[in-house]
Amino acid sequence: MPKGKLLVLSGPSGAGKSTVVARLMTMRDDVCFSVSATTRPPRPGEVDGVNYFFVTRERFDEMVRDNALLEHAEYVGNCYGTPRDYVAQKLDTGMNVILDIEVQGAKQVMEKAPDAIPVFLMPPSLLELERRLRARGTESEAVILGRLQRAREEYHADFYDYIVINDNVETAARELDAIITAAHCAYDDRKNILKEVE
Amino acid sequence: MPKGKLLVLSGPSGAGKSTVVARLMTMRDDVCFSVSATTRPPRPGEVDGVNYFFVTRERFDEMVRDNALLEHAEYVGNCYGTPRDYVAQKLDTGMNVILDIEVQGAKQVMEKAPDAIPVFLMPPSLLELERRLRARGTESEAVILGRLQRAREEYHADFYDYIVINDNVETAARELDAIITAAHCAYDDRKNILKEVE
Repeated sequence: MPKGKLLVLSGPSGAGKSTVVARLMTMRDDVCFSVSATTRPPRPGEVDGVNYFFVTRERFDEMVRDNALLEHAEYVGNCYGTPRDYVAQKLDTGMNVILDIEVQGAKQVMEKAPDAIPVFLMPPSLLELERRLRARGTESEAVILGRLQRAREEYHADFYDYIVINDNVETAARELDAIITAAHCAYDDRKNILKEVE
Repeated sequence: MPKGKLLVLSGPSGAGKSTVVARLMTMRDDVCFSVSATTRPPRPGEVDGVNYFFVTRERFDEMVRDNALLEHAEYVGNCYGTPRDYVAQKLDTGMNVILDIEVQGAKQVMEKAPDAIPVFLMPPSLLELERRLRARGTESEAVILGRLQRAREEYHADFYDYIVINDNVETAARELDAIITAAHCAYDDRKNILKEVE
């Protein structure tokens, strides 16, 4: 059984990451999301180990110290992180693991797991941002430039291997599917087969 | 319309290249084989520009001098080569062009067209070569080593990006399909979309 691939999926909120991955999961049964560790208390109905790994702040800090997280960040007083062991175990069973993560977290993961495949999911609306801003002609040039600057910063993500444009969920999911399948055909993954005859 | 991709497909005779590509062509209509130039005379039924571009030896030598061929080789007194312009024109129309070509020709193409995607198609029988040779126990060690040496030379092709194993035509064709789709999602191909918002 070949090991799974780690897919680092970023994109602005509204890009449709959950929808595209849900569609991808109907296409192949060897894909799963990672489960994050968090210091946030569980909400009603949330199950430890399914929605999150719920841990104390002391345990979280220990995981950070032990380099047991592929990335971590703090939002409004709560810590979130990706447990390295959980991901490794899933990959070992052949599952392709998807991390839904923003750009800074993606950079952290790529440093610790350079074999991961970074994919940027882009909402089609952003393609049209400048066109729309200029077309409607109601914004001042300063406002337009400010918005374009923010977009430019948000999308300055040149460490991604792939860009998937979500103008159609089916097409975007098929592209993610192809990226995973192609990754499993990579020379480095299969060269041991060539070596079998050496 | 995005430009097509050039796929350099190698593999020993018997790997099933034609069969796998024929299956691929039922999956997507943006794939075609390249048409080679040759000094070999046409056989009955062969059409110039369809099966081959039939050229004189003088014209062929001129194409070599003009760097108009992505690769060329001579077999039993006849010259064969891949016309650079023909491939470029097909790619410009958005077609993904497949070159069915042996390892030495593939190396030549990769030097002249470094953006091409080199794929090695492997017959499953070769995976089993050593196992079979040793399992049947009738060959001398010298014969086994000789056969393995030949296989090793044939498969020492570490410049390939991908290895597709043809133990199932449908699976192999789907892998080629995925490799093409993933290539069209590459950051370098789509980064201009990010730049649109800069």
